[in-house]
Amino acid sequence: MLNISYCSDKYQYTMGKSFFDNGMKDRIAVFNLFFRKAPDNNNWAVVSGIREALQMIAGLGSEDISFFEKFLPGEEYRPFREYLAGMKFTGKVYAMKEGEIAFPKEPIITIVGPIIEAQVLETPLLCIMNHQMAIATKASRVTRAASHPVSEFGSRRAHGPWAAEYGAKAAFIGGCASTSNILTGVEFGFESSGTMAHSYTTSFGCSIEGEYKAFDTYIKTHRGEGLILLVDTFDTLKCGVKNAIKAFKANGIDDSYPQGYGIRLDSGDLAYLSVKCREMLDAAGLKNCKIFATNSLDEYIISDLEKQGARIDSYGVGDAIATSKHNPCFGNVYKLVQVDDEPILKRSEDKVKLINPGFQVTYRIIQEGKFKADVTCLRGDSFAKIIENSEELHITDENDETKYTTFPAGSYTSKPLQTLVYDNGKIFEDTRTIFEKRDYYKANLASFNDTQTRIINPHYYKVDISDDLYDLKMRLINRLIHQINIMQEQEGGPAAKRFTHVVVDMLYDFIDGSMACANAEKAVAKCVEIINRYPNDQVLYVMDHHPVNHCSFKEQGGPWPPHCVMQTHGGEIHQDFYTKVEKPDHRPSRKNMFFKGVNPKKEQYSGFESHDSEGIELNNYLTKNVLVSGIATEYCIRETCFDLVKAGYNVFLQEEGLAYIDRDGHNRTLNELARIGVKIV
Amino acid sequence: MLNISYCSDKYQYTMGKSFFDNGMKDRIAVFNLFFRKAPDNNNWAVVSGIREALQMIAGLGSEDISFFEKFLPGEEYRPFREYLAGMKFTGKVYAMKEGEIAFPKEPIITIVGPIIEAQVLETPLLCIMNHQMAIATKASRVTRAASHPVSEFGSRRAHGPWAAEYGAKAAFIGGCASTSNILTGVEFGFESSGTMAHSYTTSFGCSIEGEYKAFDTYIKTHRGEGLILLVDTFDTLKCGVKNAIKAFKANGIDDSYPQGYGIRLDSGDLAYLSVKCREMLDAAGLKNCKIFATNSLDEYIISDLEKQGARIDSYGVGDAIATSKHNPCFGNVYKLVQVDDEPILKRSEDKVKLINPGFQVTYRIIQEGKFKADVTCLRGDSFAKIIENSEELHITDENDETKYTTFPAGSYTSKPLQTLVYDNGKIFEDTRTIFEKRDYYKANLASFNDTQTRIINPHYYKVDISDDLYDLKMRLINRLIHQINIMQEQEGGPAAKRFTHVVVDMLYDFIDGSMACANAEKAVAKCVEIINRYPNDQVLYVMDHHPVNHCSFKEQGGPWPPHCVMQTHGGEIHQDFYTKVEKPDHRPSRKNMFFKGVNPKKEQYSGFESHDSEGIELNNYLTKNVLVSGIATEYCIRETCFDLVKAGYNVFLQEEGLAYIDRDGHNRTLNELARIGVKIV
Repeated sequence: MLNISYCSDKYQYTMGKSFFDNGMKDRIAVFNLFFRKAPDNNNWAVVSGIREALQMIAGLGSEDISFFEKFLPGEEYRPFREYLAGMKFTGKVYAMKEGEIAFPKEPIITIVGPIIEAQVLETPLLCIMNHQMAIATKASRVTRAASHPVSEFGSRRAHGPWAAEYGAKAAFIGGCASTSNILTGVEFGFESSGTMAHSYTTSFGCSIEGEYKAFDTYIKTHRGEGLILLVDTFDTLKCGVKNAIKAFKANGIDDSYPQGYGIRLDSGDLAYLSVKCREMLDAAGLKNCKIFATNSLDEYIISDLEKQGARIDSYGVGDAIATSKHNPCFGNVYKLVQVDDEPILKRSEDKVKLINPGFQVTYRIIQEGKFKADVTCLRGDSFAKIIENSEELHITDENDETKYTTFPAGSYTSKPLQTLVYDNGKIFEDTRTIFEKRDYYKANLASFNDTQTRIINPHYYKVDISDDLYDLKMRLINRLIHQINIMQEQEGGPAAKRFTHVVVDMLYDFIDGSMACANAEKAVAKCVEIINRYPNDQVLYVMDHHPVNHCSFKEQGGPWPPHCVMQTHGGEIHQDFYTKVEKPDHRPSRKNMFFKGVNPKKEQYSGFESHDSEGIELNNYLTKNVLVSGIATEYCIRETCFDLVKAGYNVFLQEEGLAYIDRDGHNRTLNELARIGVKIV
Repeated sequence: MLNISYCSDKYQYTMGKSFFDNGMKDRIAVFNLFFRKAPDNNNWAVVSGIREALQMIAGLGSEDISFFEKFLPGEEYRPFREYLAGMKFTGKVYAMKEGEIAFPKEPIITIVGPIIEAQVLETPLLCIMNHQMAIATKASRVTRAASHPVSEFGSRRAHGPWAAEYGAKAAFIGGCASTSNILTGVEFGFESSGTMAHSYTTSFGCSIEGEYKAFDTYIKTHRGEGLILLVDTFDTLKCGVKNAIKAFKANGIDDSYPQGYGIRLDSGDLAYLSVKCREMLDAAGLKNCKIFATNSLDEYIISDLEKQGARIDSYGVGDAIATSKHNPCFGNVYKLVQVDDEPILKRSEDKVKLINPGFQVTYRIIQEGKFKADVTCLRGDSFAKIIENSEELHITDENDETKYTTFPAGSYTSKPLQTLVYDNGKIFEDTRTIFEKRDYYKANLASFNDTQTRIINPHYYKVDISDDLYDLKMRLINRLIHQINIMQEQEGGPAAKRFTHVVVDMLYDFIDGSMACANAEKAVAKCVEIINRYPNDQVLYVMDHHPVNHCSFKEQGGPWPPHCVMQTHGGEIHQDFYTKVEKPDHRPSRKNMFFKGVNPKKEQYSGFESHDSEGIELNNYLTKNVLVSGIATEYCIRETCFDLVKAGYNVFLQEEGLAYIDRDGHNRTLNELARIGVKIV
């Protein structure tokens, strides 16, 4: 039954139906897969699972319509089922490399594609990545704790055969020297390892003599291979090691044996037994006979064994790695960060769940071969450009602004951690062998400071986000908070705080005329909607009202074409404010229109300087809370907001009620205004 | 790549080669799969995974020779590879039912079959069973803690797609009301469940208004289905619940909506929020609107929420169940308990690892519909017969003999927990639906006392083993310990304790003559081997030495045919003791031969009563430590040992150096002798 591409939660498909029925299927979604906290306070995690994740993604579309009928029955699902039956993933995938070391909140994988295609990948993607990253990270911890090789052999405790096979792969990438899993070896092209279990010994009879026969037979039937005899079936020191020595000697196995030989301890006090066994082996002249230890080992026990002087040459680790025993649940999440061009976040009740919005890329800053910091930027933002050009870079801890670092221009190189790995059905294959992936992980590990890779309380490595990303995130979260506050206040009944809504320059020249701005029609509609939603607000209209010879016009040496000239159509407020605003005193009239730029010699962008037809300035009409909407973000809105803040008003800016000259300028301005305390809503 | 039948550890196959090359492939092995301790101190575990385990077993033989070349390369492996390529599992499988409640050390699965076939099943069997039993048992704990339904939806945190799909199945059997996993629903024929994620809400824009649109769209596109709206994307109380109420009302969804409706809380203080939400919903007249809570729930948190009066109607549990978070590593092991007819155990350094040997069956004792005790017996042993006939049953705690219970005859019924589910390629399909399996689990649960099924510190249920099994286990373990002791003493050099080896009645009439006993030739060979192994021992030969008219002969009214008559071949010691014993003074001679049954009127079985040709009794020659071997266990050996013990000797009995009249009598006698302190070696 297992079709990994559809090993999904039902809700991925119920949501899909809503998107489909609501005509949203062609919206382009950007999802980030990332974790918030590494397990075991490890600070970071090892990336594994990308290969299988891409196989899973490429498998979307492998089921026909009868499959979908099984879990999405009913006539009302028919059109959606037909869509699903033909649906492949047509988008793009950006991902970190297997063997990469990733920090919290950095996108491990970014999925960009039509929203239904991208949404249904969530569950299978997470279950593949959470599993492998749990195992790879645990393997990294265990192998860092050990000064000798660690073999993985936890298949029997893994959560089913898939977890066994691919967990062993992840453990290998995370630093294990070998694995016992046959399928992993076969699939990834290396030799799995293993010799004997207790049942092998007992199958020769439950006696000391049987143990000897078992050893002797093993050696005789595996001459030319590594020979590890399990010596604790009955009693390690009293018979196991003795029988092993006897069997090695009887078969001429000694320090000259080229394939290597040894004994395995699987119970009891490994520190004590290993020392005793070493003495017995040495006394018998078997100085190269290795001691291999197993039995519920983990990073803490191995550290202790080494501290106690155990004479162990290599470790076998089972459940601790195979189930990531202390923390089986790796916390990668899959979050929508953008739809079409709109960055997205969710807030939730728990602040820690706050996510980074927008389409991102992480740069690793490198100096003299050492990794110094990671910075996640919005793709192409100002930080990204600074980093790509190796200009002077100043980064600040997101949670503690007193912690900052400056990288002088030219003093560092960088590499983006996420690269394009899939595009519309085509996988850009990672052709590295599993050995190369492990080497890559080890090279990464060596590129950090040792203090950052220790097992317990590692030193924190600098992980930051770009200023633009920070500003975007703050703006989105504050917009939400302010929306909620406004809603609360509006609902407060008679005691509710009253708002003044200042509508700036919603004039035809800025909408479809000589200086038509982007998003203007939408902004008008939004603005009208807001006015109607809050009947208790006061609404004031600010408008450019220029004489024909205004100094801002190009003919007079100014920067702009002629616009909003008195008595022209271009200078009039959009008619929707007259026809669609429901409350008569909210519509434009002599009582609520304020003019600026009336003096031919004077440039005026700020609505704060406007006055009504009787010459009384806007300031005299405002309430404490002012909501601003209008055109254009970069000029009149910006100036109006600055003046309002300066004058002590509580300023809210209706983001969707704004039009602008260009989107970048608009975004920059919003960030700038948010920083001075304007609440973007 | 995933072929679950071969998701195995390499050593299963390296051991296989030794069995193969050593001509052991047709030995019939009995392996038990069992656990030693249930996770979370739960005392017991829920059985799940049998179905997939049998599919795995039936899949053995599905790979051709090229597969085996990949991990068992080399010319020396060629014959073994050819064997493997054609190898299916031809044996039998006995197993508990899915939904059964199992206790420590009881066989969940018993595999009986040719040793290589049975050995290679170990890893895939364990990884399937350990996974599903971890999940089913955890689901049982969580659902027992909750007084409302629990849905499983942890696929994203499961260890890969297999773990997600079959973990959900196990969770269902363990009491979950539903699962979100599509494939589980499709494969097991029920409807998976789920409605929406945060990304659904945010895809309508990162705003309060977007949240309303998301809810409204969801309701419009899912009318006629259950409607659960996720209300914590931005702020549960300030906008989420309000938007939900508004959307329900706008779409005419109220308490009359037949498919049910509700809200979901996924963050924050669920106790507080659920109470507040209930108030808001009730105030809006939506009294049947259910509150569904999620967010890292487990049995402890759910218990707490209920104690605090949370108003939650159902729970969704993710990682706690899907990864069995507190104890991801379920401890089923797979141990060889018998080869051909020889029971087996391993000892190891850790006493807790001691296993129950032999081919077993567990009976559940039932009185008035309630489960009272479990008793694991050797199949067909005396306890098993008592239980099957409902005779008076007396059971004693294995670890505390002061704890015992008597079930009067006829007062109880019983059922064997393991039944034949597979025989040489044929699966005896469990045709129950997954609902019936869950019902079976629930009925089992209800058949225990409530105190035995609570979450924390449950009362212990009686779990015992039969006297025969106990005796066998003790005999095997003591044999090992005594073998080790003897070896230690023999190796002790000049200071070593000296043994007297008493060889009883190794005479032709008992070997191949009028009273030929079973195992006699083998016993002779073994005895000679032991004599030669310990050159410092004193060896004494005891022999029946009857006159023709001895009272034990049938003709004289005795029970036996004439045997071991003086001066006949039948009364002579086997020639191997003359020809194969290396040390001359270890061979039979006037100096070390002792006679019994010489007086025609006197029956004598005990060698203790024998005397040498000068009339001096055996007693005068013995050292403190006496090793006994010979014929026949049930008579002369038994009597000799009894007398030796009574006289204060330290008596060792060489099990493989014994011949006997019948195997059952032999075993009973060994148990009896072990109980009086004879050390079977």
